[in-house]
Amino acid sequence: MVSTTQITNTPNQAVSTVPHVIVIGGGFGGLQAAKALGKLAVRVMVIDKQNSHVFQPMLYQVATAGLSPADIATPIRHILRKQHNTEVVMEQVTGIDMQEQRVLMHNQALHYDYLIIATGASNNYFHHPEWQQHAPGLKSLADALEIRRTILNAFEAAEREPDEEKRRELLTFVLVGGGPTGVELAGALAELVQYTLRRDFQHIRPEIARIVLVEGESRIIPTFPASLTSKARRKLQEMGVEIRSGVHVEEIHEDYVMIGDQKLATRNVIWTAGVKASPAGQWLHAQVDHDGRVKVQPDLTLPDHQNVFVIGDTALVMQNGKPLPGVAPVALQEGRYVAKVIADRLAGRTNTPAFHYYDKGMLATVGRSFGIVDVGPFHFTGLFAWIFWLFVHIFFLIGFRNRIAVLFQYAWEYFTYQRGARIILATDDIRSARSSTSARERRRHKAGTR
Amino acid sequence: MVSTTQITNTPNQAVSTVPHVIVIGGGFGGLQAAKALGKLAVRVMVIDKQNSHVFQPMLYQVATAGLSPADIATPIRHILRKQHNTEVVMEQVTGIDMQEQRVLMHNQALHYDYLIIATGASNNYFHHPEWQQHAPGLKSLADALEIRRTILNAFEAAEREPDEEKRRELLTFVLVGGGPTGVELAGALAELVQYTLRRDFQHIRPEIARIVLVEGESRIIPTFPASLTSKARRKLQEMGVEIRSGVHVEEIHEDYVMIGDQKLATRNVIWTAGVKASPAGQWLHAQVDHDGRVKVQPDLTLPDHQNVFVIGDTALVMQNGKPLPGVAPVALQEGRYVAKVIADRLAGRTNTPAFHYYDKGMLATVGRSFGIVDVGPFHFTGLFAWIFWLFVHIFFLIGFRNRIAVLFQYAWEYFTYQRGARIILATDDIRSARSSTSARERRRHKAGTR
Repeated sequence: MVSTTQITNTPNQAVSTVPHVIVIGGGFGGLQAAKALGKLAVRVMVIDKQNSHVFQPMLYQVATAGLSPADIATPIRHILRKQHNTEVVMEQVTGIDMQEQRVLMHNQALHYDYLIIATGASNNYFHHPEWQQHAPGLKSLADALEIRRTILNAFEAAEREPDEEKRRELLTFVLVGGGPTGVELAGALAELVQYTLRRDFQHIRPEIARIVLVEGESRIIPTFPASLTSKARRKLQEMGVEIRSGVHVEEIHEDYVMIGDQKLATRNVIWTAGVKASPAGQWLHAQVDHDGRVKVQPDLTLPDHQNVFVIGDTALVMQNGKPLPGVAPVALQEGRYVAKVIADRLAGRTNTPAFHYYDKGMLATVGRSFGIVDVGPFHFTGLFAWIFWLFVHIFFLIGFRNRIAVLFQYAWEYFTYQRGARIILATDDIRSARSSTSARERRRHKAGTR
Repeated sequence: MVSTTQITNTPNQAVSTVPHVIVIGGGFGGLQAAKALGKLAVRVMVIDKQNSHVFQPMLYQVATAGLSPADIATPIRHILRKQHNTEVVMEQVTGIDMQEQRVLMHNQALHYDYLIIATGASNNYFHHPEWQQHAPGLKSLADALEIRRTILNAFEAAEREPDEEKRRELLTFVLVGGGPTGVELAGALAELVQYTLRRDFQHIRPEIARIVLVEGESRIIPTFPASLTSKARRKLQEMGVEIRSGVHVEEIHEDYVMIGDQKLATRNVIWTAGVKASPAGQWLHAQVDHDGRVKVQPDLTLPDHQNVFVIGDTALVMQNGKPLPGVAPVALQEGRYVAKVIADRLAGRTNTPAFHYYDKGMLATVGRSFGIVDVGPFHFTGLFAWIFWLFVHIFFLIGFRNRIAVLFQYAWEYFTYQRGARIILATDDIRSARSSTSARERRRHKAGTR
């Protein structure tokens, strides 16, 4: 797959004798594992193709121009800067050589004693890869910026469009998938339409804008209790969101979608329907489920590979006969767990109990003042639930600056109905920036070759 | 140039009888002109290819990861939302038909009675267009993000590079041009190197990083008094910036530059040397100087075209035998002036005095606590000058939110030595986002056709 000529571990250190743990992926699971390994007598290396950890639960805020990328992202090496046994490398992993215990990258291969794979998930278009071009998903900062550009460009195009019918088409937004991401995005988008854009555009009446949320199951956010679903549904409808549940999107085209057998003219489709695991399963030649998730043992290792762990959205972990959901708390607990397994093994203990996920509950929001809380015996919605959501999320935002910046932004939006990040980076400018970047990347890669 | 089939002005309004003023460009000059026209009995249309006004004097902060794009940019239509006689259109102008008094765009042509051209400037590589690929400039948000990516990627590459010599090369930054932009960028970059990155990287000693500022004139910031130049020079040198003045960059290659006859290995060259006017001169078939600036009459109109004004960086305006510099105050005063000329003409007055620029002075900064002030009789440097710079700039930042956000960011950086926006958007992600964007743009354009 890659011709690897040299094996080095860290560029500037003599090869040490303590075990080498490689963590691939700096998301919730990988970062938590790396942190929990910080005090052990191991060398830890975190490899990610990006330099930053992204707080994914707030991505929809970047997509709807409420926050800037830097508000929800922090450089991984900054988060781990105080861990002296840990090194962070920004690189693209291309494969894994399990025989030789090596992680393969473009120009190098690194030996591991323990490997933790936490490479997350990407959008799943369920055998319709051609839909991707018409329906961007929401899994990365680039995705979020793309959706932001789509939405803001749609309003600009509608403003200069004289034909009412075409304007309607430009202002019809279809969200495919009524899980938490779809619901949160629908709420934030409805507010963007109603409050912010109403005042800045002369020719657009907000009434002609339509937001349609499509969910295949019989009700939206089906993982929440039914009573909360109906409150969320009512709130969304109050905000002008049309909900179509119990029906599937059958076709996605450039200028229309088929919802069941109904045709809807639209030029803005956003994919919030599902994810598939990263290609780690292929690297490992492991058994995967239909979403590409790797089947792991009760201790999250790969069958026959006791030193290879798979966690987070990349892993299929069964509990009570059901797979655990692809949410941050699962990844966080799994990350802590594998660090504990490694600690136990280093101490000669082999009796670490199997992983068990402790479900603390679920939170979601609909717009800027309505939350949904399903935590143990507490099920409630409304302003207080929103404040609860806000504090929980901001508490977990990594980086003190980000927490304050985001709180400030939220307060600002709350009192002024503004959204602060309504910047469209022009395509031409990005294109020209892009081409020179690629040249730069190439030569940097050349320079980085060893 | 463009086949224009239809002429419409505003999509949804009957053609009105008041004069139609078209402003091309939503920078300092164009925006100021539009604002000053807000109370007149005219219809105003502002056309810009971007949706946002960018506060260019702070672009270097985006380039050095101190601020996010949204902190220094505001949607133009938001700024002008309360002006009922004004419309904002996001479109790319492709030419001007002076005979028919029309502004040409991709799919339409708009009639004007008065035209104000304020399309700014782009980087000028002085007959070396091939340098652009190796030396990005700093004129737009996309430029700033590209430079940010270049800088942060250089550190990531150096961190994984085992060879000391190559690491030096990766960490050598050459800034071509010692005007205010070069000086401010050098100062901010030196801080990024010294404070922020020192703590996050394990293998990089900040001492091996080099920042070289090259200025062809005998001293840096030659437009400031000599006493201030030498203070700025001393401050930069204290911060570790090497200054080479009185010498030119003769060649720029992928992995080295020639400074005079000295070769310097580097992979990071940033262009801050000069700008050239936008191609408006070609649209107008007008006389231009060697930087592409349009030669205008004392009332900023085009010779033989009393209803076409050119302002800001696009115009060559002589005063006391010298061209006015391409700075924000000149553009702002010119914008106000042309609005006054139009008001006078509408009132039947033809005796508007010629434009005269009132120079209030110049400000610059070197790093996060050293300012340079040259205002009337006051020439001083240091912390107080920096605070003065900060307040003046934040006062002129458009949008209350941005002012507070930027102040907060500055305070945060000041007390913690952090830079908050150190996010690298991965090339692959941007590429995939890009391709779907282009498809989207294309179909949007189709939809927008009339």
